Amino acid sequence: MQDISAYVAQNKERFINELVQLLKIPSVSADPAYSQDVMDASASVKTSLLEAGCDTVEVCETKGYPIVYGEKIIDPTLPTVLVYGHYDVQPPDPVELWDSPPFEPVIKNTELHPEGAIFARGACDDKGQMYMHVKALEYMVKHNQLPCNVKFMIEGEEEVGSENLSEFVANNKEKLANDIILISDTGMIAKDVPSITTGLRGLSYVEVEVTGPNRDLHSGLYGGAVANPINVLTKMISSLHDENNHITIPGFYDKVEELSTAERAEMAKAPFSLEKYQNALQIASVYGEKGYTTNERNSIRPTLDVNGIWGGYIGAGAKTVIASKAFAKISMRLVPNQDWKEITQLFKNHFESIAPAGVTVKVTPHHGGQGYVTPIDHIGYKAASKAYEATFGKTPIPQRSGGSIPIVSLFEKELDSKTILMGFGLDSDAIHSPNEHFGVWNYLKGIETIPHFYKHFTELSK
Amino acid sequence: MQDISAYVAQNKERFINELVQLLKIPSVSADPAYSQDVMDASASVKTSLLEAGCDTVEVCETKGYPIVYGEKIIDPTLPTVLVYGHYDVQPPDPVELWDSPPFEPVIKNTELHPEGAIFARGACDDKGQMYMHVKALEYMVKHNQLPCNVKFMIEGEEEVGSENLSEFVANNKEKLANDIILISDTGMIAKDVPSITTGLRGLSYVEVEVTGPNRDLHSGLYGGAVANPINVLTKMISSLHDENNHITIPGFYDKVEELSTAERAEMAKAPFSLEKYQNALQIASVYGEKGYTTNERNSIRPTLDVNGIWGGYIGAGAKTVIASKAFAKISMRLVPNQDWKEITQLFKNHFESIAPAGVTVKVTPHHGGQGYVTPIDHIGYKAASKAYEATFGKTPIPQRSGGSIPIVSLFEKELDSKTILMGFGLDSDAIHSPNEHFGVWNYLKGIETIPHFYKHFTELSK
Repeated sequence: MQDISAYVAQNKERFINELVQLLKIPSVSADPAYSQDVMDASASVKTSLLEAGCDTVEVCETKGYPIVYGEKIIDPTLPTVLVYGHYDVQPPDPVELWDSPPFEPVIKNTELHPEGAIFARGACDDKGQMYMHVKALEYMVKHNQLPCNVKFMIEGEEEVGSENLSEFVANNKEKLANDIILISDTGMIAKDVPSITTGLRGLSYVEVEVTGPNRDLHSGLYGGAVANPINVLTKMISSLHDENNHITIPGFYDKVEELSTAERAEMAKAPFSLEKYQNALQIASVYGEKGYTTNERNSIRPTLDVNGIWGGYIGAGAKTVIASKAFAKISMRLVPNQDWKEITQLFKNHFESIAPAGVTVKVTPHHGGQGYVTPIDHIGYKAASKAYEATFGKTPIPQRSGGSIPIVSLFEKELDSKTILMGFGLDSDAIHSPNEHFGVWNYLKGIETIPHFYKHFTELSK
Repeated sequence: MQDISAYVAQNKERFINELVQLLKIPSVSADPAYSQDVMDASASVKTSLLEAGCDTVEVCETKGYPIVYGEKIIDPTLPTVLVYGHYDVQPPDPVELWDSPPFEPVIKNTELHPEGAIFARGACDDKGQMYMHVKALEYMVKHNQLPCNVKFMIEGEEEVGSENLSEFVANNKEKLANDIILISDTGMIAKDVPSITTGLRGLSYVEVEVTGPNRDLHSGLYGGAVANPINVLTKMISSLHDENNHITIPGFYDKVEELSTAERAEMAKAPFSLEKYQNALQIASVYGEKGYTTNERNSIRPTLDVNGIWGGYIGAGAKTVIASKAFAKISMRLVPNQDWKEITQLFKNHFESIAPAGVTVKVTPHHGGQGYVTPIDHIGYKAASKAYEATFGKTPIPQRSGGSIPIVSLFEKELDSKTILMGFGLDSDAIHSPNEHFGVWNYLKGIETIPHFYKHFTELSK
């Protein structure tokens, strides 16, 4: 399969330009203001899949944004790969921190990306990584190198919890039937240290509202005499961690998988420089649960983070007011075996129980998902490992990710198939942050590596 | 002075209409977007003072918004009353909670105000109460009832800390020379329970900023491994109160005036229903410093309240992000003897000292002012007391207010004169809140009562 490298080299400019066009569409699923753009993105994905060689592509309606489904079935007796990705993106704010407009992609060289990186919201998460699969299909079809059947399921609600995906999957088990699911929505350790994500954290995302007096009050006339919802909210949130940064919600850790010393030792082999990590974030020190390393804290341990908080006067100048309400968005990252619905309920019960007299508390579950683990002796993992060896000349390192792709555990449950997470992004790509980018080298390397996976997976399936 | 009642009755409609015109000007000093409106309000006040009978009125420029100064000197050997008020108003937000637009005044009858109340931002604080003095002057001049000299100083930055007033006062001691300062920017206990505010709390207003990583981060990839500025901010703020709601800042209480049991017993005589108080705010319970009553907590005790907090994603839907920064606006109400600059420094030192490794903290002092007490044996207090007796038929109750009018202590220092706080508003007027209003009865009663003050003060000064 030498010619894949040549094909990528010949079509480099076009591959980049096509992705740039897709990145220009501000498909922010969290904000209704962008709804037409999200729809436009789904149409664009359909066109790309047809041009790449899918026999049929449908834009399947859901209660929310549509799911683009495409397939090329060459022989029902051959294995089938289901590619999953998403065309929606995170909100771009804070927009003022972007060096260039989030939806006007630009290519700039950086220290890590001397070949250039594409800067735009969604460049890496997940338009860029999803599009690698489209271009890999184009190559395989054009050169009769597609060794098995392929199906694409590209959704538009991943960044808001894939709320309508589960119903779609449950209702289309036949259509989605596959032998392996392939997803590129994670990262690798470094350009010279390929890795495959074998574990994902689960997620429980909630919004809390604390209500005190029935109206905003003058902080002079009422200050000190009534519960201030913001002060109360800070007390309630801060009480969720103890002095060792353990989470204090009763029962929270009951089902947490405790890794063996051996497993932790294996994980510890992944190259990691605390100094580089801190320098990259410009922090004087890391911070987290006592008794665990940084890599353990963000992969095998559950967490609780406030993702947003607001209340009272946040405009220019000063306002001496006691707000009637205060709010926070809180997410918990979960590890395998923790059930997100159970954790959400534990949070709700606990948070409501610690509300002091004088305020009322409302907890609204937002969305969530289960954690997941891929066994490294699975043929899907082996095929991916061989594919990286072919293009990187190295065996990839299996690694647990702190991120969550809730639908991975859903797929296992509904479609009874494992997922292989072939990510080509880097931690420094700033996904979910201002100046998100994706290295041109990584993008092209992904396109080059994927066909090798199809080849090896088909062979190992025999 | 019977005819003042008749004059008010005859001119009621005009008095209301003139105030309504002033209330239509959105003179929000905290928000630069309204700067032209604030200037328009100053011009409107100048016109009103000239029409009311001032001999000269100047709009005095400052580094910020101008101070309107007017005077009518009838005989330099007679006493001089200096009236202070402000034409700027608090921001109207949250605008969506107003039943009618904040700058489109409407008159509605309420249970407390069967004669109607004027609903608009600034209706009570302070345009309405300030305008009572303008109309009282109009009456006294027209009917040759002005027994002494009068000066007006109406500023446009009270709601943002009167930053430029101190310099103006210091540079114009001669022009502002007076025997007593009269301010209506406070409230009274009830329509049938007149009261005079004899104590004000001081204020220290600061803004805090907690910075963690140099950019927003994906909460899955970094969650649990780096200090989350919002979680940290909640921990820091919540630590500022102990389990008894005492403030934990070292030295904070050192200079707090401890009232005698006798004084506290005297205060306790003011009519107060905890049930009514809680029902009015729709809270199940009050909340505050252990060992003090509600009326003590919001008058003779210092407090610390968060007036605004923000950080991370606060838009629609969910964003799994760890914010780079989190912010809060915090104000402390101080009691007599606490020096606001000293307290501000104590807060800054303490807050910066409790920042955990992994974040940096910035504390920006905003503004502040000292507390104040008016002795009830002062002739100014006695004159005010007689004025209320004349129009309410009752002796007013002296009361401590939880609010702050920082400039009152400034006046005492720079102009060496005491201030009488004749407030005609009610706690239920919702100043600083949505649906602020001022009872028509209160407005007219104020206009009627003020001339009696001039009469008695002049007599008592002989």
